[in-house]
Amino acid sequence: MEMTHNKSLPETATISPSDYVIVGGTGDLALRKIFPALFYRYIDGQINDQFRLFAASRKVPSIEEFASKLRDFCADAIAQAQDGETRFAEFISIIHLIAIDIVSGEGGEVLKEHLNQKASETRPVIFYLAISPSLFGKACQSFDRLGLVTSSARLVVEKPLGRDAQSARAINDELRAVFDERAIYRIDHYLGKETVQNLMALRFANTIFESQWNNTFIDNIQITVAESVGLEGRASYYDNYGALRDMVQNHLMQLVCLVAMEPPASFTADQVRDEKLRVLRALRPIHEDTLKDHLVIGQYGAGSIDGEQTASYAEELGQESNTDTFVALKLYIENWRWAGVPFYIRTGKRMAVRASEIIVTFKKRSHDIFASANGAENNEANRLVIRLQPQEGLQLQLISKQPGPGGMRLFPSQLNLSFDDTFKTRLPDAYERLLMDVARGNQTLFMRHDEVIAAWDFIDPIISAAHFIAPEIYESGSYGPESQKSLFDDETQNWHNPEGA
Amino acid sequence: MEMTHNKSLPETATISPSDYVIVGGTGDLALRKIFPALFYRYIDGQINDQFRLFAASRKVPSIEEFASKLRDFCADAIAQAQDGETRFAEFISIIHLIAIDIVSGEGGEVLKEHLNQKASETRPVIFYLAISPSLFGKACQSFDRLGLVTSSARLVVEKPLGRDAQSARAINDELRAVFDERAIYRIDHYLGKETVQNLMALRFANTIFESQWNNTFIDNIQITVAESVGLEGRASYYDNYGALRDMVQNHLMQLVCLVAMEPPASFTADQVRDEKLRVLRALRPIHEDTLKDHLVIGQYGAGSIDGEQTASYAEELGQESNTDTFVALKLYIENWRWAGVPFYIRTGKRMAVRASEIIVTFKKRSHDIFASANGAENNEANRLVIRLQPQEGLQLQLISKQPGPGGMRLFPSQLNLSFDDTFKTRLPDAYERLLMDVARGNQTLFMRHDEVIAAWDFIDPIISAAHFIAPEIYESGSYGPESQKSLFDDETQNWHNPEGA
Repeated sequence: MEMTHNKSLPETATISPSDYVIVGGTGDLALRKIFPALFYRYIDGQINDQFRLFAASRKVPSIEEFASKLRDFCADAIAQAQDGETRFAEFISIIHLIAIDIVSGEGGEVLKEHLNQKASETRPVIFYLAISPSLFGKACQSFDRLGLVTSSARLVVEKPLGRDAQSARAINDELRAVFDERAIYRIDHYLGKETVQNLMALRFANTIFESQWNNTFIDNIQITVAESVGLEGRASYYDNYGALRDMVQNHLMQLVCLVAMEPPASFTADQVRDEKLRVLRALRPIHEDTLKDHLVIGQYGAGSIDGEQTASYAEELGQESNTDTFVALKLYIENWRWAGVPFYIRTGKRMAVRASEIIVTFKKRSHDIFASANGAENNEANRLVIRLQPQEGLQLQLISKQPGPGGMRLFPSQLNLSFDDTFKTRLPDAYERLLMDVARGNQTLFMRHDEVIAAWDFIDPIISAAHFIAPEIYESGSYGPESQKSLFDDETQNWHNPEGA
Repeated sequence: MEMTHNKSLPETATISPSDYVIVGGTGDLALRKIFPALFYRYIDGQINDQFRLFAASRKVPSIEEFASKLRDFCADAIAQAQDGETRFAEFISIIHLIAIDIVSGEGGEVLKEHLNQKASETRPVIFYLAISPSLFGKACQSFDRLGLVTSSARLVVEKPLGRDAQSARAINDELRAVFDERAIYRIDHYLGKETVQNLMALRFANTIFESQWNNTFIDNIQITVAESVGLEGRASYYDNYGALRDMVQNHLMQLVCLVAMEPPASFTADQVRDEKLRVLRALRPIHEDTLKDHLVIGQYGAGSIDGEQTASYAEELGQESNTDTFVALKLYIENWRWAGVPFYIRTGKRMAVRASEIIVTFKKRSHDIFASANGAENNEANRLVIRLQPQEGLQLQLISKQPGPGGMRLFPSQLNLSFDDTFKTRLPDAYERLLMDVARGNQTLFMRHDEVIAAWDFIDPIISAAHFIAPEIYESGSYGPESQKSLFDDETQNWHNPEGA
């Protein structure tokens, strides 16, 4: 088994020079994700010294101190790149540290001066808010007061965008009071993953799949987003959110949309987002009455992962709590394509492995011509596993003949396509893709306001109803609570547990 | 890319003891193919010392001489098997050399005595005619006169079964005057190949393929059976037959049947053969008037293969000839499933490689949502290549996204499944499978009388009309005559040239 491809990795298209202003530019997200992503793009030549990167923060260290901290997060890139140390030094030289109080706007004149030096209608100025959402409104107002919100200004924000529809609307209103919807880029980093984008190619460039992507041929669809980590020091935030808000409303809903949406007429921002919105609006609502059949929530107890003992959620938090660290949901999309096909989605912390997978199980064949030779137990179905992480790839289960001069005995065989193995090269991180798309002005992989709200409109009643349910404790290092099996209508269906890396 | 399978190779089912009588048992086919196949089955324990193998010939050598000759053809098996030499000696001990004049029956009493010793209704006696078809009738009459054609007797014959419908009927009449149709096993060794059988699993055990196996989804189907050898000392036979009779009427027609047939209700002999027959009877006849658009014939000229100079057909034959060593045909199957889908089939000698492939090209997608990002030139179609030899395997062309933070650029990637690589074990030869099926009484992979006749009924008018066409000379080591491209109606279609091993 091998996978060959006809072309090498494409040259990355250059993009026209831009200014990135990272607000919270010395914080954790900036150092761990944003600047390293930009550095990788710099190494590849997609960003060059015509670009400027501003790290804006209330208090800023010296550039040497900043560079030293950032180096730790860029160590791999430096090691892999040709003349890595030189390139890193060059990269640091396009970074400007700006001390600014984003609430009052104090210190903003310096930033304004910088931006004005190169301002033009064709040079994007990208404000990336790597700060608490509670400060989004104030930050936007400060930019506005400073006169920075020009026609070339763009805004990038990330979850959490509220903790329900009402607060999401409030945040959005604050953003949209200053920025036009067409200038707002809401990141769900799942959408930047190569495999998620390849899902679009798989569905809409391959007639052999798209012609069967419906309730005539598909038995059920599963999405598992399993994390092995626990609270990771986010206790106070997380306990106020839980898995439904933190993972399901955004990442899992987005994946459901991409798997289930009708083919957009073109792969352009609003066409794609219109189709995703139609999926969200076609979801059968889950109410208090129907909750029990559609939802299982859990919270991790103590256990062990990779041989290491781990504490329970309550122990990590330091108190008892009803917060969900695991959610399994059964969804139905009430349209012509999907009526009757259950979507089983689940996510949890402290699960056995870190792995995200979409599993499309096709219907069993309606008639087995091999029954006499083969025995009925071998009526396995075709299955497509789309692996999002950690090893991005595809797996197609085909039914083959067992070789040999025996009877016509069948067995399931797996065709695997691993992107890592195939391209023998590092795949870009989701942030790299998304940061370049902002500069290009391509909103296709970003969430539109109405999508965010529609997802909350579906999730809010579930959260309200689930409020009265105590989560089932599951052992850390397992695949979640026992009772998740109860969601299946059909005893031939079961959860497909992902394997580790 | 790797292919995993859930089970190891199955235990080969034991079959009940049988007597094999190989008529022409000291000849080329017997030594090269039949006895080595039986030896492999012996090594695997499917045949044991309860079986008896009779090598019948007018004159027989000593068993030592026979064993010494056979050893050359069993050398690989001996080397690979545990205690190979011992197993070979044991195998030789179940072989009996019988001197018999098959025309007169002289010497047959000895064979009869042997067979009578163990005769029972449940012990199959298998007569394999590894002799010239001109002797089939006489041989059957001799068996009959000797009283060997009991209810447990079975007859195995191989091509050529005639050189047209009339002579095929005559041969069949001779066989059927003595043996019941249910006791006659007509071998087309292509049907014993693992990949050909796996084609049945692929089609009828995988809903993702069978649901698209029709003119709505498939653009065209190609079958290429390319040989690199020339006449190989068969000059007088071959020049009297040519590729249409020697390859197309049997192997290629059988492959067309398996690719195109409706799903049989069960994978049993007559159900499968009924469906194959329906394909043959649905072929649009090719007449003198339509010949030019449907047929290209060629004859190899001089050239080189693998760097070695090779002579032309006429040089090898020693005289000029109009015999076809290459045939390309365009077929249409006039039924609901296949109306409008061309089947392009071709076979030739002295081609660039030895390779047999079935290529299913699906239709291009009707709409390209990625056109703006991707460019129209990338509208590649899905394609399934079923490789029959030399490396049995499958290749599925999927359209994927080119990884990287560029646009949504597509490229065709190949998912490969190689049976050789996958099972890391020797795949059984077609003869092994077929010889065991005879002992089991399973006729599924053998041709029925009416199939053979229906194939001739289709081929005969083509041969008659083609008689007036001079074959186009093609260079040895090429993929055949230039003009074969003229068969395509659509300029986006083209021959898919197989690669070598």
